[in-house]
Amino acid sequence: MPETLIKVDLKQSPYENEMVHNRWHPDIPMACWVKPGDDFVLETYDWTGGAIKNDDDASDVRDVDLSTVHFLSGPVGVEGAEPGDLLVVDLLDIGAKDESLWGFNGFFSKNNGGGFLTEHFPHAQKSIWDFEGMFTKSRHIPGVRFAGLIHPGLIGCLPDQKMLDMWNEREVDFIATQPDRVPPLANPPAPKTAHMGKLKGEARDKAAAEGARTVPPREHGGNCDIKDLSRGSRVFFPVYVKGAGLSVGDLHFSQGDGEITFCGAIEMAGWVHMKVSLIKGGMAKYGIKNPIFKPSPITPNYKDYVIFEGISVDEQGKQHYLDVHVAYRQACLNAIEYLKKFGYSGAQAYSILGTAPVQGHISGVVDIPNACATLWLPTEIFDFDINPTAEGPTKFISGGVDMPIAYDKT
Amino acid sequence: MPETLIKVDLKQSPYENEMVHNRWHPDIPMACWVKPGDDFVLETYDWTGGAIKNDDDASDVRDVDLSTVHFLSGPVGVEGAEPGDLLVVDLLDIGAKDESLWGFNGFFSKNNGGGFLTEHFPHAQKSIWDFEGMFTKSRHIPGVRFAGLIHPGLIGCLPDQKMLDMWNEREVDFIATQPDRVPPLANPPAPKTAHMGKLKGEARDKAAAEGARTVPPREHGGNCDIKDLSRGSRVFFPVYVKGAGLSVGDLHFSQGDGEITFCGAIEMAGWVHMKVSLIKGGMAKYGIKNPIFKPSPITPNYKDYVIFEGISVDEQGKQHYLDVHVAYRQACLNAIEYLKKFGYSGAQAYSILGTAPVQGHISGVVDIPNACATLWLPTEIFDFDINPTAEGPTKFISGGVDMPIAYDKT
Amino acid sequence: MPETLIKVDLKQSPYENEMVHNRWHPDIPMACWVKPGDDFVLETYDWTGGAIKNDDDASDVRDVDLSTVHFLSGPVGVEGAEPGDLLVVDLLDIGAKDESLWGFNGFFSKNNGGGFLTEHFPHAQKSIWDFEGMFTKSRHIPGVRFAGLIHPGLIGCLPDQKMLDMWNEREVDFIATQPDRVPPLANPPAPKTAHMGKLKGEARDKAAAEGARTVPPREHGGNCDIKDLSRGSRVFFPVYVKGAGLSVGDLHFSQGDGEITFCGAIEMAGWVHMKVSLIKGGMAKYGIKNPIFKPSPITPNYKDYVIFEGISVDEQGKQHYLDVHVAYRQACLNAIEYLKKFGYSGAQAYSILGTAPVQGHISGVVDIPNACATLWLPTEIFDFDINPTAEGPTKFISGGVDMPIAYDKT
Amino acid sequence: MPETLIKVDLKQSPYENEMVHNRWHPDIPMACWVKPGDDFVLETYDWTGGAIKNDDDASDVRDVDLSTVHFLSGPVGVEGAEPGDLLVVDLLDIGAKDESLWGFNGFFSKNNGGGFLTEHFPHAQKSIWDFEGMFTKSRHIPGVRFAGLIHPGLIGCLPDQKMLDMWNEREVDFIATQPDRVPPLANPPAPKTAHMGKLKGEARDKAAAEGARTVPPREHGGNCDIKDLSRGSRVFFPVYVKGAGLSVGDLHFSQGDGEITFCGAIEMAGWVHMKVSLIKGGMAKYGIKNPIFKPSPITPNYKDYVIFEGISVDEQGKQHYLDVHVAYRQACLNAIEYLKKFGYSGAQAYSILGTAPVQGHISGVVDIPNACATLWLPTEIFDFDINPTAEGPTKFISGGVDMPIAYDKT
Repeated sequence: MPETLIKVDLKQSPYENEMVHNRWHPDIPMACWVKPGDDFVLETYDWTGGAIKNDDDASDVRDVDLSTVHFLSGPVGVEGAEPGDLLVVDLLDIGAKDESLWGFNGFFSKNNGGGFLTEHFPHAQKSIWDFEGMFTKSRHIPGVRFAGLIHPGLIGCLPDQKMLDMWNEREVDFIATQPDRVPPLANPPAPKTAHMGKLKGEARDKAAAEGARTVPPREHGGNCDIKDLSRGSRVFFPVYVKGAGLSVGDLHFSQGDGEITFCGAIEMAGWVHMKVSLIKGGMAKYGIKNPIFKPSPITPNYKDYVIFEGISVDEQGKQHYLDVHVAYRQACLNAIEYLKKFGYSGAQAYSILGTAPVQGHISGVVDIPNACATLWLPTEIFDFDINPTAEGPTKFISGGVDMPIAYDKT
Repeated sequence: MPETLIKVDLKQSPYENEMVHNRWHPDIPMACWVKPGDDFVLETYDWTGGAIKNDDDASDVRDVDLSTVHFLSGPVGVEGAEPGDLLVVDLLDIGAKDESLWGFNGFFSKNNGGGFLTEHFPHAQKSIWDFEGMFTKSRHIPGVRFAGLIHPGLIGCLPDQKMLDMWNEREVDFIATQPDRVPPLANPPAPKTAHMGKLKGEARDKAAAEGARTVPPREHGGNCDIKDLSRGSRVFFPVYVKGAGLSVGDLHFSQGDGEITFCGAIEMAGWVHMKVSLIKGGMAKYGIKNPIFKPSPITPNYKDYVIFEGISVDEQGKQHYLDVHVAYRQACLNAIEYLKKFGYSGAQAYSILGTAPVQGHISGVVDIPNACATLWLPTEIFDFDINPTAEGPTKFISGGVDMPIAYDKT
Repeated sequence: MPETLIKVDLKQSPYENEMVHNRWHPDIPMACWVKPGDDFVLETYDWTGGAIKNDDDASDVRDVDLSTVHFLSGPVGVEGAEPGDLLVVDLLDIGAKDESLWGFNGFFSKNNGGGFLTEHFPHAQKSIWDFEGMFTKSRHIPGVRFAGLIHPGLIGCLPDQKMLDMWNEREVDFIATQPDRVPPLANPPAPKTAHMGKLKGEARDKAAAEGARTVPPREHGGNCDIKDLSRGSRVFFPVYVKGAGLSVGDLHFSQGDGEITFCGAIEMAGWVHMKVSLIKGGMAKYGIKNPIFKPSPITPNYKDYVIFEGISVDEQGKQHYLDVHVAYRQACLNAIEYLKKFGYSGAQAYSILGTAPVQGHISGVVDIPNACATLWLPTEIFDFDINPTAEGPTKFISGGVDMPIAYDKT
Repeated sequence: MPETLIKVDLKQSPYENEMVHNRWHPDIPMACWVKPGDDFVLETYDWTGGAIKNDDDASDVRDVDLSTVHFLSGPVGVEGAEPGDLLVVDLLDIGAKDESLWGFNGFFSKNNGGGFLTEHFPHAQKSIWDFEGMFTKSRHIPGVRFAGLIHPGLIGCLPDQKMLDMWNEREVDFIATQPDRVPPLANPPAPKTAHMGKLKGEARDKAAAEGARTVPPREHGGNCDIKDLSRGSRVFFPVYVKGAGLSVGDLHFSQGDGEITFCGAIEMAGWVHMKVSLIKGGMAKYGIKNPIFKPSPITPNYKDYVIFEGISVDEQGKQHYLDVHVAYRQACLNAIEYLKKFGYSGAQAYSILGTAPVQGHISGVVDIPNACATLWLPTEIFDFDINPTAEGPTKFISGGVDMPIAYDKT
């Protein structure tokens, strides 16, 4: 029976749990230590630390304080780990907490976070997904049920001071290029809501002032939101500090490529059972800058898809140069239009793309001026046939059910 | 025995074949007509019409006249097809021509076409790939052999005049924003080298003056370079003109997501066996703007990967906003560095990513400011173990073999 | 949170648990009732009810009293179920009990149960398998580790009296054809060790006297030992009695096709999370005699195999007529010989075939006089390369470790 | 361009082609020679040498002279091959002959060959399957279309005299145990219709008198009818004679596990593109008795199945001891009953099981007295939904079309 090294109490504020933190900084003390070869369990909060409720009201999504995220469990020190090593992490299993067998998905208000399609869906909305063993479905989105592709949205090792400084510099400089943008270009340090784990007093304040936000993926991995980093996969993380300092959180029951809904995948509180080992000097041996990983031998094997193309001409007909972001957005919008023909609301369709094991492929990036991206929608997750036929779609979804919405306060 | 409606003679110039064309224009006459339900074969040139040879000299890649591409077979008229329909195309089988069981891959000179990594590989290089039944390998890149994921890089129906005008306007305007860029932002009409099929005389000259280049993917499909549009798949194309006017070419024996090497995938001359039918009024029925498709039930089932991450911070450390293009470039560069540790040259590694059934996923596009893209390198295509191990890589490739290079003439 | 309707205490004898039984009989009272649409959890003992220990001594395997097996949890009554219906069971998830994260595999003594290769392995042996999240490995069999294909070996509904009588008649008659055979042809009722659930007193004794043993698969399903009835699958069971009476047990963490080692797969105590619904009159609607099922969308996706053939000529060179049993035995023996070349003992190789997700295919059954069966050994479960190469095998397994053995007492 | 070493003219009798033979004997001269590393093409007749026609009359199936089969192309001598080696054969590609893009399936009369279900389908019947690129469908069986899993039913190397003598002895002895059985237990040598390749005169007559029939699979491989030995796979054959003597024939466009219809799979004339190499002394190195093989990386990836169980109680209710043959027959009969509920005739359903990529698994072989076998029917090959639903099946097949039948002459 593996030991649970970090426990979280969902009824307690994550700020009261010293084995949790929400910023990246080398001074955050290790929450606990393990040896190479050990396997152990870490429990985690959902990424918001419990701010989003299992109800039919989206005002919590609208009002969430995004400076508080993401609440991570760790850092876990690994004996013998040194800068330049690769920390090998086997994700042996991942699950929801027994007392919390549900997750949420939503879109933030354009004025508080936004999302990939925020111009099209500018208001806060949410859907709640119930877990039935290895499967999930939502009372807000009929006709769809799928197996979980459970993974941590966020995992990685502590940066050293040099890397932290680089992050802060490039992101703060970047914000400065368009400081009033809504949503912002990036998030600067936010000391007030920083949770620095066991670090207290002045040391805490100093570190909080420069602690990197957890939102973006970076060189160490971090918030990569890679759906395929699923339970059963093996990840090789760069080590920057003595002891490595592995932290994890932001668990997803399932997610589509891109995590386009931002809030987020199917977000859940849960636990990760993992095992660690080291490749000494592995960064130089393999020329590693970002993490690499091996996929899991156990994932949902959905095989039948309807695939949508998008090119880098935007919704207004404007030409962009090999821009995969724009191309993927078009593919997503095309898929949403398609799903609406079966009776889904646009918001429901958007949520399906954000939560189901949808693939997003970079299909062509050299045929000037248009990038081509494809979105792969698995057909097997639907209760009915969504394939195109000569007869045309039959409207299967009655429209009587939709997703809660909360308009911005004026 | 299906009829071969269009034949090509590889010893003849494609300009002499009236059932071939290299521009998009509604006035190009149908090369032949079929009925819904018919299955038939079209032979095709390679995309350059034979400009690249099966030899060890990359000067042909350096010197290619890119205004001549792509030589397509068609247009095929489909009886009863009308604007607004969906043309359903079953790609029943695809192969190389018996007298030409090889293909080429290469990088263009930065001064003549470039490619996804042209800043890193600015000179013309090529590799030749021999086909052994369903498999391929290259004398220029040892240690790698894989099953073909055979597909057309380019397929679609003729635009109508309105769509053509829109294409020309948006692309010509776009070029005007940076007219001297090398490589250019886009390609304007190039009447001199236009091949307008059966269209002759003044009508030809008029159409050639405004015929859209075949390089980019557009609303009708076109040069999507989607590796998964492989033999066995079913594609649903928007119809814009009476008779649809389906053309196809640019066959690939295999390609990685992104076709990052641009010249190109594993390019070949060959044939396509296809079957057509119609969904009357299908564009409105399903809300279709770009083609959609269903994947093939028969594709190489490589399942074991090493996966590389990239984020939207470029090689110079500059921050980009959720830019998947930049992120995927980093993932590609990370994979190249990794493969170099096993003895491959950078050019060889780049070619492997361009030719093998590599997946490129859009992993996270909302975690400001960094997009995250992943490149999935199948391990089973290598003769040796490329997985990371505690021992580190053993250099398996001797270095005695490399890809031909041709420097720009000064 | 699904309710756990049946709990088992591994420290308590299963005979003391009234919601457990080890015989099939229509008079066994329902342990509990559910409604169609309900999902719930049943805990189960391992099939022997705890007789086999997590140690290095195989005497428990040698001495087990096989008249006591299998301890099943149930029967669960389903409201509204009637004879002729199909009971639809979704296996939502299955796992080991937290306090018992291990399983056993073994071969019975030829004189007490035997097994598929009992002539070759006549002595009791066992191996213990530890679970690491979704994976397992054994301290008795080095070099092999695999993902669990977790499933119930035994599941089905209560027979009615008519079916029970038919079972008893055909099996008792069958035993009579060779009454002294070792191992026996079949197992007759064994009232002494019968556990009839809540049934007590005379009613218990009467039912125990005719209660069908749980060993064979029969029309209702029962001990099918189908590895692909794994968590995530959906099963359609014939209903013979009012309320259906679904029972389950004999959980396996993993098993190869055939369960050739008999004792058994990787046997474990655990829990099953399931959901039930009904197809009224489904047996007639679909012409159902035996259960049918749909496989799980989440199973280990091992794809690379070495495949062994066997034909129906036995070890002594004797010809059998299209006998798949003999052919599969030869395929198994061929695989064992092969694995021995890599240093495994025969017993270890036999255990691998019994526990790993090995496929056994009926390849040819018409080419007189030889049936052909194939055994598919996944290569990805080994730490080293077991593919055939020109160099020949390198002996990777030292031989210092082997499986405990317990010789028959004389 | 690989060389075609053996050509067949479908308009010519196979008896006139010296590079073809229909018996196994070490004295058959090599038809041609190759070197290790060579790749080459062999054309083949269908197994009957053209006896079955593409028409709607089953009398050819009824009247076929089974003593003439199977017409094999070869033997191919491999330079340097010696007894005890393994001959490694890469099946690089396989296809139908361009002038013969169709195949046949059928059941023999019980009085002339029979089949797995001959008691249920005692009369000669046939269906014709047309190939459309990589797919096939039959005018005699509506509603079903699938991708080919193309493979040779029969492939292997020449036996030496010792092995030949053993075969003859064990099979002739076996026939003697029940000499009048219909169908027979096995087939003895039949010199009259023997085709011994280039062997002529007395030498031919002597060899013909003892040449082993090609019907059963044996130690060397031979008529294994393993559907997964498909194009793209790699096979390792035992070598018994100098030069190996590899022969191949009996090509199948597709087959279900068991080839239960016997006449046969989807039988076709065609070509095999293969490559050979050697593992010197490989039989001893790997303990090889029968061939082993690696599956193809390119096969139809049908993933969704309805799975039928069968146990070893026969149609008359008689108990058999762990008899997988009986169990698989029950699973087949269960599947046929199921398909009949959708409007198929029994014969059509039987043909689907014989031709489509149906899996037959040996699921349990130790649970006395019942073996359990499963038949996996892919749902994706049907034009309509064959999954069980609460509503019950809708009869989709009109019944207006059925398979030709030819009753025995009286």
